[in-house]
Amino acid sequence: MDSFRPVDPRKSPRFSGIKTFMRLPHVKTTEGVDFAIVGVPFDTGASFRVGARFGPEAIRNISTLLRHHNEVLDVSIFDHCSGVDYGDLPVNPGYIEDSYEMIEEALFPVVDAGVVPIMLGGDHSVTLPELRVIAKKHGPVALIHFDSHSDTGDKRFGRKYTHGTTFRRAIEEELILVDHSIQVGMRGSIYSRDSLEKAKSLGFDLVTTNEGQELGIDGLMKRILKRVGDAKAFVSFDIDFVDPAYAPGTGTPEVGGFTSSDALHLVRGLKGLNLVGFDLVEVLPQYDPSQITALLAANIVYEFISLIALRKKLATGE
Amino acid sequence: MDSFRPVDPRKSPRFSGIKTFMRLPHVKTTEGVDFAIVGVPFDTGASFRVGARFGPEAIRNISTLLRHHNEVLDVSIFDHCSGVDYGDLPVNPGYIEDSYEMIEEALFPVVDAGVVPIMLGGDHSVTLPELRVIAKKHGPVALIHFDSHSDTGDKRFGRKYTHGTTFRRAIEEELILVDHSIQVGMRGSIYSRDSLEKAKSLGFDLVTTNEGQELGIDGLMKRILKRVGDAKAFVSFDIDFVDPAYAPGTGTPEVGGFTSSDALHLVRGLKGLNLVGFDLVEVLPQYDPSQITALLAANIVYEFISLIALRKKLATGE
Amino acid sequence: MDSFRPVDPRKSPRFSGIKTFMRLPHVKTTEGVDFAIVGVPFDTGASFRVGARFGPEAIRNISTLLRHHNEVLDVSIFDHCSGVDYGDLPVNPGYIEDSYEMIEEALFPVVDAGVVPIMLGGDHSVTLPELRVIAKKHGPVALIHFDSHSDTGDKRFGRKYTHGTTFRRAIEEELILVDHSIQVGMRGSIYSRDSLEKAKSLGFDLVTTNEGQELGIDGLMKRILKRVGDAKAFVSFDIDFVDPAYAPGTGTPEVGGFTSSDALHLVRGLKGLNLVGFDLVEVLPQYDPSQITALLAANIVYEFISLIALRKKLATGE
Amino acid sequence: MDSFRPVDPRKSPRFSGIKTFMRLPHVKTTEGVDFAIVGVPFDTGASFRVGARFGPEAIRNISTLLRHHNEVLDVSIFDHCSGVDYGDLPVNPGYIEDSYEMIEEALFPVVDAGVVPIMLGGDHSVTLPELRVIAKKHGPVALIHFDSHSDTGDKRFGRKYTHGTTFRRAIEEELILVDHSIQVGMRGSIYSRDSLEKAKSLGFDLVTTNEGQELGIDGLMKRILKRVGDAKAFVSFDIDFVDPAYAPGTGTPEVGGFTSSDALHLVRGLKGLNLVGFDLVEVLPQYDPSQITALLAANIVYEFISLIALRKKLATGE
Amino acid sequence: MDSFRPVDPRKSPRFSGIKTFMRLPHVKTTEGVDFAIVGVPFDTGASFRVGARFGPEAIRNISTLLRHHNEVLDVSIFDHCSGVDYGDLPVNPGYIEDSYEMIEEALFPVVDAGVVPIMLGGDHSVTLPELRVIAKKHGPVALIHFDSHSDTGDKRFGRKYTHGTTFRRAIEEELILVDHSIQVGMRGSIYSRDSLEKAKSLGFDLVTTNEGQELGIDGLMKRILKRVGDAKAFVSFDIDFVDPAYAPGTGTPEVGGFTSSDALHLVRGLKGLNLVGFDLVEVLPQYDPSQITALLAANIVYEFISLIALRKKLATGE
Amino acid sequence: MDSFRPVDPRKSPRFSGIKTFMRLPHVKTTEGVDFAIVGVPFDTGASFRVGARFGPEAIRNISTLLRHHNEVLDVSIFDHCSGVDYGDLPVNPGYIEDSYEMIEEALFPVVDAGVVPIMLGGDHSVTLPELRVIAKKHGPVALIHFDSHSDTGDKRFGRKYTHGTTFRRAIEEELILVDHSIQVGMRGSIYSRDSLEKAKSLGFDLVTTNEGQELGIDGLMKRILKRVGDAKAFVSFDIDFVDPAYAPGTGTPEVGGFTSSDALHLVRGLKGLNLVGFDLVEVLPQYDPSQITALLAANIVYEFISLIALRKKLATGE
Repeated sequence: MDSFRPVDPRKSPRFSGIKTFMRLPHVKTTEGVDFAIVGVPFDTGASFRVGARFGPEAIRNISTLLRHHNEVLDVSIFDHCSGVDYGDLPVNPGYIEDSYEMIEEALFPVVDAGVVPIMLGGDHSVTLPELRVIAKKHGPVALIHFDSHSDTGDKRFGRKYTHGTTFRRAIEEELILVDHSIQVGMRGSIYSRDSLEKAKSLGFDLVTTNEGQELGIDGLMKRILKRVGDAKAFVSFDIDFVDPAYAPGTGTPEVGGFTSSDALHLVRGLKGLNLVGFDLVEVLPQYDPSQITALLAANIVYEFISLIALRKKLATGE
Repeated sequence: MDSFRPVDPRKSPRFSGIKTFMRLPHVKTTEGVDFAIVGVPFDTGASFRVGARFGPEAIRNISTLLRHHNEVLDVSIFDHCSGVDYGDLPVNPGYIEDSYEMIEEALFPVVDAGVVPIMLGGDHSVTLPELRVIAKKHGPVALIHFDSHSDTGDKRFGRKYTHGTTFRRAIEEELILVDHSIQVGMRGSIYSRDSLEKAKSLGFDLVTTNEGQELGIDGLMKRILKRVGDAKAFVSFDIDFVDPAYAPGTGTPEVGGFTSSDALHLVRGLKGLNLVGFDLVEVLPQYDPSQITALLAANIVYEFISLIALRKKLATGE
Repeated sequence: MDSFRPVDPRKSPRFSGIKTFMRLPHVKTTEGVDFAIVGVPFDTGASFRVGARFGPEAIRNISTLLRHHNEVLDVSIFDHCSGVDYGDLPVNPGYIEDSYEMIEEALFPVVDAGVVPIMLGGDHSVTLPELRVIAKKHGPVALIHFDSHSDTGDKRFGRKYTHGTTFRRAIEEELILVDHSIQVGMRGSIYSRDSLEKAKSLGFDLVTTNEGQELGIDGLMKRILKRVGDAKAFVSFDIDFVDPAYAPGTGTPEVGGFTSSDALHLVRGLKGLNLVGFDLVEVLPQYDPSQITALLAANIVYEFISLIALRKKLATGE
Repeated sequence: MDSFRPVDPRKSPRFSGIKTFMRLPHVKTTEGVDFAIVGVPFDTGASFRVGARFGPEAIRNISTLLRHHNEVLDVSIFDHCSGVDYGDLPVNPGYIEDSYEMIEEALFPVVDAGVVPIMLGGDHSVTLPELRVIAKKHGPVALIHFDSHSDTGDKRFGRKYTHGTTFRRAIEEELILVDHSIQVGMRGSIYSRDSLEKAKSLGFDLVTTNEGQELGIDGLMKRILKRVGDAKAFVSFDIDFVDPAYAPGTGTPEVGGFTSSDALHLVRGLKGLNLVGFDLVEVLPQYDPSQITALLAANIVYEFISLIALRKKLATGE
Repeated sequence: MDSFRPVDPRKSPRFSGIKTFMRLPHVKTTEGVDFAIVGVPFDTGASFRVGARFGPEAIRNISTLLRHHNEVLDVSIFDHCSGVDYGDLPVNPGYIEDSYEMIEEALFPVVDAGVVPIMLGGDHSVTLPELRVIAKKHGPVALIHFDSHSDTGDKRFGRKYTHGTTFRRAIEEELILVDHSIQVGMRGSIYSRDSLEKAKSLGFDLVTTNEGQELGIDGLMKRILKRVGDAKAFVSFDIDFVDPAYAPGTGTPEVGGFTSSDALHLVRGLKGLNLVGFDLVEVLPQYDPSQITALLAANIVYEFISLIALRKKLATGE
Repeated sequence: MDSFRPVDPRKSPRFSGIKTFMRLPHVKTTEGVDFAIVGVPFDTGASFRVGARFGPEAIRNISTLLRHHNEVLDVSIFDHCSGVDYGDLPVNPGYIEDSYEMIEEALFPVVDAGVVPIMLGGDHSVTLPELRVIAKKHGPVALIHFDSHSDTGDKRFGRKYTHGTTFRRAIEEELILVDHSIQVGMRGSIYSRDSLEKAKSLGFDLVTTNEGQELGIDGLMKRILKRVGDAKAFVSFDIDFVDPAYAPGTGTPEVGGFTSSDALHLVRGLKGLNLVGFDLVEVLPQYDPSQITALLAANIVYEFISLIALRKKLATGE
């Protein structure tokens, strides 16, 4: 069986063709597929700026700049793995719970087939249905959560489902191995003194940006690896983890954050882990006139893919 | 009792001060108030682009350019009427039905006190709760609806409440005197041959942009006036009525529309009518880099206010 | 055999999914296909602003707003015809003559199979290889050319192939039935007194914007129809035909042009003709922050498709 | 003596070279010069948005698109006249009266030498020192003033010199033949009922946009020509005369205005007059992301130049 | 007496409501008020780009994102202090000295009542009248000045008052305790070798960006604290202190600057000082398409407020 | 003989005047000239985004902010050297080889006269003809190449000349002393494992961004200096060397790069070298809405000039 690989950028200009992620084939199959790029164009959960529904489009458009070899991780991605752009999951804009059902139903076959899903958000409310599907297949998983917000609020204006309550819900629904989970990057003003304490009391290890900058990238990486250990893990990366200078196109930006270089190093540092799913959320193209946010997002997704390829490379001893 | 009037633009630069509409006083009162500007920053009903939640802010910001005398209608607004910026109504982003309840509850006291409300949307889904409040006070009213879309769909993805189903719901809920109601400006591609027919079969008089351009502005105005007659009427103006050249900052633009000049003439032409409420919806500032959409919206609202002032002027014989 | 039709916008939000034109299937087939959308992301021929290589992407992204029924022409497109998004043709950026060869080779099978091609440019230099392919199949054809420039220069800086020399070359290569061809919309400053005279001396009927505005849209339409007659015809539409207020995102804008409404009427007016190919060129997204240029382009292409559907509808008597 | 003419756009790409107007030689001479482009990068007089100090730069940058033959007026400009880009006049940002002195001193030698000056503003406050220089040379002149505002206020916040008081000052200083002067295009909300009346009582003929649209372009043209008669005249064109759809990049935009086509026709219609100076003011590039305002401004200046060339052509019988 | 506090962001969406800073009450009172946000929308002193008059509006608009607890300084602001948005001070655009008088007159009652003023500029010329008022109340104060420019020029084009001469004037007028004052962050090209020397010879301690980066944030903080000592101090923060990547929306940007994280650490480091006033200047929204400059400005102001709250918290032992 | 120096920014506002680099005289002379700014507005070699043809214009426009004294290098530039803005070289857009010939012919007289050329690109394909001219005068030179890409590909789509093959060609043509040449900053995804190896096998010392960050700026500087030694050297600086946060306006951005501060330090670190030419390429203004990329580019060019001035200062012992 042939594997799926992108159009070769040396054979066709990178600005040409239908815009799938990296110009991967857009095929709704799971046969012979190691990873699938899956758009989740949903932003009804957003509390401030909106427009993440156009995030998958923007990330795909600029992702065509990416080439096939990851020099830092030293892996030629498609020598080791096969991937598709699965397109977008169905959603019902304006209706969170409807959309959760639609997302779960459409995503399950992908995950169930053993394909590693990489979701392009959408706002952070989409991670809950994703985790439901992941847990249905794998049981509860460790969460590695990069974000400037903890997203562990209880309710917003009386409602349980928003982009600010995702991870409390995930714990309540027992989708997460909270003892192996870690939240990294929290910063900015908070609602009240106990906001972050509550997140910790839910069981998360939580490292603020301030603490992370003191630990340094290496120290932070070690803390993550130690926390997760051998557990199956899901990586959820909110682009607002990075400073607005590097990622202006997002919904609830917080100043004083990490650089793009920090972000890449941290993601690459996950290379020993058993990662069963990923998402990259909160890209809002209307606040991103030079496409630098979408480009950074595409590169982080590229590192996700590289981690998958590297694991396969090591597993097969190629 | 003093009346409420804006800061005088000859006494303080128009770019200065807290940005209320026209720099009207921001007071939550209905005493001695003829009209109230009311923001409805809600966009969960939007089917394509989002961001109308920032519409009221954008319209207020640029509205400070407006001066107090309407030269065409020959009325010095605040010699005849008193108005406030009532601020924004409460909403629950992400939850349409919750928001409808919140809007209705907060808007009713304004309308009940006999103040003419002028709402700044928000997407077009907000007109339904507005009409509920209007009808609760006044009974069913004539609708004068400027828009490139009829917004009389039945359901979208199985749900009844969206910005594309508002006016079908309004009829079902008997909020509208359909025999005195008119929809003007429909154009662009439609879902199926019967899309507009269905709107007509609901009882609306419906004039497409094509038909309107053939009638001419005067002919169109006459048709509206004749249709509405003496009925109490509500004006709902979707900024996409106007061509995207004049109003790029909107959610579902349709090319080939009316000019800003046409729009102003049409609104001024309503001057003989008994108008009990207004809204101006679907301004999306993130698609409006030069603020021309917000400026046009502010000017249309200004004409609404002028109509109120003119009616009072004529009534009092001043 | 099934026909190809877009995703139904009533079943899936229009912002979702891989962005093909109108969300048509992206299939490289000609079997059972009436028309094919074909991107030509090439801008090496441009003399002033560049970036039309991203034109096809921008037009596809916003084209998802389009619905299936054309109300003015009264045709439900996909009840009568089948279409695909064929993707982009190969090009070699920086090399015009190479790209011409690549375009011709890749486009010929589409045209040869009897599929009506609708090209999305790219700059206007791409029309020459398109016409070569059309003529190879159909023999010389009538040209209906909407543009603010005649594009009949001889050489630019000593070179024969640029976006300003396309139609002189087409005549020299005998690709055009010049006696049935017409150029409409020329305006703006010109290089010398004889610039337009030269175009006329090549045999074209040429109507400047000034003359066209005097004729009126109906008069202009008649002149086009009379000129073309029964000949097989190719429509080449440069988006700068329209005023920059309506189409700011283009390479060599000229002020004082037609409106979007004029453009739509003129294209719809071609409905009786035997049209064997179309292109829409010179959309530059980096100068189009609100996407109104791309939206207008998508709508003009939509009218092209509608003309094809209407012809089939009439032919089959359905 | 050689005349001064621009770089030939057929010999060097229009995007290249130091950006003077039309790529005219930047020479501070008046010898052998018929007209001089003169930047006045001053915006301290602005009451709302600021940034017109970058107007001359923006107009020059895009003006390189212009070619040498005016097809509508049928004149090859540089066959009949010689022109230079004189650069910018000195100003002291933040200090209006200082700047007036500097402008007058620097501009006088140009005007005194018989060169026709064409000023690129800057906000409309710069027209006063220009008129002082013109009157010093020519005596009072007729004013042909295209604008959406009359700019005949008395004082703003107690001060006499702002962009809203220019023409009252000009009358007081007897720089204008008010009986031969006309203001065209006033529209939008005004401070009080008598705002326009005051302008008329100063002696101006004043035609609002509404009245102008009723007269039609031809009627309006006749009214201007009749008013001005044989008097020496100065043309002051505020870009906000045109609708914001066509000219978003301006300081105090007013919706409901003329089109770019109207503007061009009106300026060309001045061709019989004895025009001794021109300015084009209120272009703000930061509100003009697609450069369409600057492009329209450059084209209007191009028509000014064409009028000069045409007059010389007719005078010399060439 | 009740204290003044913002709308609770957990009870009303942060994008809604009239845009005051943090949605504080807009009340022109000093009773029961610890700090007042005061806009100074004035930019006539600017030497290069203009538009800071819209700075207060932009900062207020985005400031609604801020929440009530400062996690790093561990203070729940409104548990300890009360604040209002006092609106904007009157100014006369185009007239610096007039505006200075207006600013002084309007600001004095705030300062005199013992309220700590936090000004939102405006260009840096506004700090002079602020310091006059501060000194009138408190006598000369230490200045802590973050900026990429020293702003100690003598005259510009013969005039004493501009945004580049503010601090020389402040010394001449004996508003500053120069021996306790420090300027931090100077960088970029300068007019002449002695430009910075002159600033030092006026008595300031001056630390360039280069020197500051060598000292490190901690070293720099110590130097500031030591310099200021127990003196009453005023903090003037020009947003161009930060690198243009983090603050593109400013008037005279200088590359090679500090990060947003550095800026926050430095401001928080002032927590032991006796701070009697603050300003944040030179935000130009038209150069800030993603609002990241305004957001950073709002966060720095938030730290100012936090310092006030923290001091009160410590003072009251709560 | 007088030397050429810019307009004094203390005597004329920096936003005024015809926009040459730093407002240097635009004179096509080499007499008495130490360095010449030379625009190369060519982007036909670009593989992804285009628009660098407007790079020279954008850099010149913002360069007027620069002042005459370099504080870090302690040199008052025009006390020691004389420079001109030579304007743009002729190019033929769309034709690389034609343009190479035109560039070489026009540039040679400058270099031959002993003037140090500083080129403003344009895409990176322009460095090849520049090096041809340099080598014709000086023989092969050391290359100091800052870039995120190595640009040592062999062919692209079968063609030898593009912006990705420049330095392989330069070696083949023996324009470079490869043993003294170094490439710094490579990062991002690459086509295949051997992409960078090939560059090294051509003889370059190549330091990736990752390696450079580990070395630190000082370590990196030493490595460059050691490598180059006493050889005559050419500096080619691709603005994408810097992270997109600092330089969004470029053609093929790569995330995870150096800061603007790093870039300035590295360039200043070249001060002991024998530098015979410079270029700064790949600035695309349409992706640079706040002009920060152009500003950084202008500052890097300013450091180039400072290096020339410093060398002359040291040589003459002034």
